[in-house]
Amino acid sequence: MNRKPFIDVCFTPTLFSLFDVSESIVVVIDVLRATSSMCIAFEYGANQIVPVKTVEESLAYKQKGFLIGAERHGEMVDGFDIGNSPFSYMEPKIKGANIALTTTNGTQAINVASVAHKVVIGSFLNLSALCDYLINENRDVVCLCSGWKNSFNLEDTLLAGAIAKKLENNFNLSDHRDSTIAAKLLCENAQNNFYVFLNDSSHRKRLADLHIDEDVKFCLEADKTKCVPYLSGNALIV
Amino acid sequence: MNRKPFIDVCFTPTLFSLFDVSESIVVVIDVLRATSSMCIAFEYGANQIVPVKTVEESLAYKQKGFLIGAERHGEMVDGFDIGNSPFSYMEPKIKGANIALTTTNGTQAINVASVAHKVVIGSFLNLSALCDYLINENRDVVCLCSGWKNSFNLEDTLLAGAIAKKLENNFNLSDHRDSTIAAKLLCENAQNNFYVFLNDSSHRKRLADLHIDEDVKFCLEADKTKCVPYLSGNALIV
Repeated sequence: MNRKPFIDVCFTPTLFSLFDVSESIVVVIDVLRATSSMCIAFEYGANQIVPVKTVEESLAYKQKGFLIGAERHGEMVDGFDIGNSPFSYMEPKIKGANIALTTTNGTQAINVASVAHKVVIGSFLNLSALCDYLINENRDVVCLCSGWKNSFNLEDTLLAGAIAKKLENNFNLSDHRDSTIAAKLLCENAQNNFYVFLNDSSHRKRLADLHIDEDVKFCLEADKTKCVPYLSGNALIV
Repeated sequence: MNRKPFIDVCFTPTLFSLFDVSESIVVVIDVLRATSSMCIAFEYGANQIVPVKTVEESLAYKQKGFLIGAERHGEMVDGFDIGNSPFSYMEPKIKGANIALTTTNGTQAINVASVAHKVVIGSFLNLSALCDYLINENRDVVCLCSGWKNSFNLEDTLLAGAIAKKLENNFNLSDHRDSTIAAKLLCENAQNNFYVFLNDSSHRKRLADLHIDEDVKFCLEADKTKCVPYLSGNALIV
């Protein structure tokens, strides 16, 4: 394109219909923990991940030979193979696996985003590889934060801000994008110590209550993988 | 109540249905310029302001002896008595006047908010008086940012953050309110120089394009009035 592309930030799936994404790349973000776990799954050799809406739909994939994963309200659902912790994807069974996954926020956001020109998966874990990909594509970008049950959350906004910071030389950040300005400022406030910064945030407390602090620390680390999963048909692949 | 009340920030009217406000005070915020102008109207002696949805509805009030105001896309609508500039409310005709007003964002947000226990009008211009009122009421508060056509904007978020800062000793800001944390941080980033801070924001640029920079400067000044307008029936009064 003849102009620098824009980068927009959509704070929750509820606001997504305000964005025209027919020509844009949408980066779906659910830092704690769905999109972080997805990136790790591909790093450990997963073949595909089908994001599904309901626990029942996920169960149906079991009969097709898929590993199935389900998380609701922060916890793994009984009877499933995998939860939503990135560590549960660092196992030999993941290599070559077809996976069907449903989570409270992240997989719902992927389904909402599927009207876009292209849907990719973002996390701190693949931040640099993701940004290299976006710079190379040279298209308008919308970062879709999954939020928590459609409400704004800080951790997804921080990643959107971190993406905006990495893209600022190649993208147009100066015009008409208040949400991008806000996300970038919040990220700068965190000064690369996201774990401390998120100390007061709601999801961190929810996860701390669930004794999965190690997940949180891991999901806030940058550049553990170069995988940039994208949606092809109804499945994420790399 | 036996606990400290909460303060929540709703970034746009689109997200308002996520909040249970049946027992809460909703502060409607449209800094540039509807709620700023409303506060000034009462400072200059307005009797009541009826927020209406459409230009046609506003015209119907003309026949009832009301002054009528309408703004769309940042500009005064032809044939109306008043626009959306606070300076247009600093005139002798405002004293004792009944006013019907429709604006792009602010009056729409008031209508959305009307399901709340109580609806009050917030601006930088009445910031201290508003916060004194909220502390005295000791109820949960939701700051409803009008945004711009349902999108997030910085100036309304800054005021929400300024309210949160003034209430932090009397309200519970530490639990489960990511949007409040974000608004407060952004406000702290502005370091009380909101005009400079907003330099890059979308609405500031829209208004600058319309040559109403004086409006912007005025609307970002704190404590020009002690009026705290509130909704009674279908009209704002003090």
